[in-house]
Amino acid sequence: MDTIFQEIDNCVTAPQGFRAGAVACGIKSDVNIKDLALLVSDRPCVAAGTFTTSTTRAAPVLVCQERLKRGMAQAIIVNSGNANCATGDLGLMNAYRMTELAAQYLGIENELVLCSSTGIIGRQLPMNKIETGVGQIVLGYDQGNAFSEAIMTTDTRPKRLALEFTLDGKTVRLGGATKGAGMIYPNMATMLCYLTTDAAIEQPWMQAELRAAVADSFNMVSVDGDMSTNDTCLLLANGLAGNKPLNAHHPEAETFRQALRYMTQYLAREMARDGEGATKLMTVHVLGARDKEDAIKAARGITLSPLWQCALAGGDPNWGRIVAALGASGCELYQERFEIAIGDVQVVQQGMGTNYDQQRAKAVMAEKEVTITINLHIGDGEATAWGCDLTHGYIDENTLYTR
Amino acid sequence: MDTIFQEIDNCVTAPQGFRAGAVACGIKSDVNIKDLALLVSDRPCVAAGTFTTSTTRAAPVLVCQERLKRGMAQAIIVNSGNANCATGDLGLMNAYRMTELAAQYLGIENELVLCSSTGIIGRQLPMNKIETGVGQIVLGYDQGNAFSEAIMTTDTRPKRLALEFTLDGKTVRLGGATKGAGMIYPNMATMLCYLTTDAAIEQPWMQAELRAAVADSFNMVSVDGDMSTNDTCLLLANGLAGNKPLNAHHPEAETFRQALRYMTQYLAREMARDGEGATKLMTVHVLGARDKEDAIKAARGITLSPLWQCALAGGDPNWGRIVAALGASGCELYQERFEIAIGDVQVVQQGMGTNYDQQRAKAVMAEKEVTITINLHIGDGEATAWGCDLTHGYIDENTLYTR
Repeated sequence: MDTIFQEIDNCVTAPQGFRAGAVACGIKSDVNIKDLALLVSDRPCVAAGTFTTSTTRAAPVLVCQERLKRGMAQAIIVNSGNANCATGDLGLMNAYRMTELAAQYLGIENELVLCSSTGIIGRQLPMNKIETGVGQIVLGYDQGNAFSEAIMTTDTRPKRLALEFTLDGKTVRLGGATKGAGMIYPNMATMLCYLTTDAAIEQPWMQAELRAAVADSFNMVSVDGDMSTNDTCLLLANGLAGNKPLNAHHPEAETFRQALRYMTQYLAREMARDGEGATKLMTVHVLGARDKEDAIKAARGITLSPLWQCALAGGDPNWGRIVAALGASGCELYQERFEIAIGDVQVVQQGMGTNYDQQRAKAVMAEKEVTITINLHIGDGEATAWGCDLTHGYIDENTLYTR
Repeated sequence: MDTIFQEIDNCVTAPQGFRAGAVACGIKSDVNIKDLALLVSDRPCVAAGTFTTSTTRAAPVLVCQERLKRGMAQAIIVNSGNANCATGDLGLMNAYRMTELAAQYLGIENELVLCSSTGIIGRQLPMNKIETGVGQIVLGYDQGNAFSEAIMTTDTRPKRLALEFTLDGKTVRLGGATKGAGMIYPNMATMLCYLTTDAAIEQPWMQAELRAAVADSFNMVSVDGDMSTNDTCLLLANGLAGNKPLNAHHPEAETFRQALRYMTQYLAREMARDGEGATKLMTVHVLGARDKEDAIKAARGITLSPLWQCALAGGDPNWGRIVAALGASGCELYQERFEIAIGDVQVVQQGMGTNYDQQRAKAVMAEKEVTITINLHIGDGEATAWGCDLTHGYIDENTLYTR
């Protein structure tokens, strides 16, 4: 990690003035698992977001998109166990009602509350449980970790990080928590991500920077190619750090940009690593593509190939499946030019297999993290995508989800 | 089945004047499994083909595409166990050499021989084994079934059919054999398909009809979304039936068109049913889409969703995953309009779950064939796609393929 950032604890409550809390209110069948979480800033924040491009997006996504038109927010209420998707007008009313309950409890303006839901699609939210639950949430300035745990669904572990750095000589913090293990193919990946900072930031610049950071992080993650109806990434900045508001002309804008990119890529990688049933993290670097768009196609094409994901699970350096996925990706390619390396083992040169060391290739494939590097030798387009292997665990997780 | 066709035996050798044969020549590690097959017509045929759109297509695909420019062929030589892909100039020379060996053995013109390969990517063909093997093939007018078995890779059973019908009062036959179980997402699916007929047909019409039939059959099949480097579908017509050559103006052109569509859809369904690890065939009908293109997007989106494939494996009527896949498919959709039925159980109306009979839905999901019907209520676009469930069997098949 670049030494200008320091990793610290408490994720979304690490920045000044953010409190969080969570309860088990019974949305999930296991009543001991926290399924309702609240995140609030001591004062209204500049807010930005990116969302799923699905045409069946869920009610809470519609609420966030509507409310973010103002570019302001102060709190986020999130439930797991129910996606509030394919729930019609009642679902939309319930999403608004969730924000209202949180606003009343917090004593803040209703329009400043955002909401998210994740879980089973097609069921109405149990509003009585949520109403009771909201009133039981105990907020704390050190409860970021509890928040990060309450938003989990099939995740095996929370994914969270906080970074500390300076802007204008002031200490600034950026916190993040994300969930997502299946239905992961963002545009956005169900992933939910909440980012908080005490930096002062101008909204248009923040929205643009968030969109760019998401494009190179969450939108480059795939577990199974299934895009969710609920994908949401929100960033709230409350300005309590006291720096001069960031915009494109701020001399230290690049510091914040790098922190945001470090944060989102860290959380994206952690999502891929914790993909349903995953035992391995795969990183695919594509170089030498005609342009960035082509590099993205190629990199995502590899992470999306079930056959290559299975080979990864088995530790089998069956690079022919990378060739097939590359050929199917739609990127410009010349068969006599491209190179593929698995870790540091160059398995393909000029489009053909090299006489590589099989034992060494198998050893690389046996690692917990496997990096594939592809050089198309056409232009200077580059991209990196993250994914995981495909195992019995994924099947087990998903054959009997609603029972 | 429409009564104008009669199903008969011997698949690709059912039409007059076609012989086939196969041997075990040792390309596959199990020396008892047939891995080299030959199909030949007694006289030169009008020939048409469709191929993978992959940019890493294999050497035999390049050979077929080059030779079909003449629109004529007489024989096809096929090996399994090795895809002859990512094999460079030597691979291309070897593909041409395969056709030369077959031409010499058959005593026909070299340019009239086509070739296919399927199996592991990235290894050179063992030409000495193929050279010896070709000379050992015993051809017979009743050996179509042996041919259909020799082209299998991970298929658990051959897929084949022959149809008999009349044109101009003459008995005409259409035979077909296909292979394909994994790396199935055609544009084309690895699928190989060989079709033979003794009908007389004009080449341009035949090529157009084959392309259209493949679009509505093989190109609508998905097992895993992995497009292959070797997909090939060839149709040879030798004219021995003595009908007037078919073209768009022939009064009975529609009979042949229907036979070709029946054949290709039958073989496509059989491929989906025999998908790697598959226990169930899924058929997805989409109606009411803006146009056919949108209907195709929606139908394929469902068959391609690993989460829905897992739900199908578990017999779990978790229709929310259909909603998610539909929303991600990119088809035009209005949340308050669409309907989904699983078998005869209407689970979604006006974009929301109905109060359907859970037991009945589970019973439908427990069948060996499950049909999903989606009405988007926008326009009159329609499409049908076929797929299968995703099980441990797929993972087992693919984690250790090259060892």
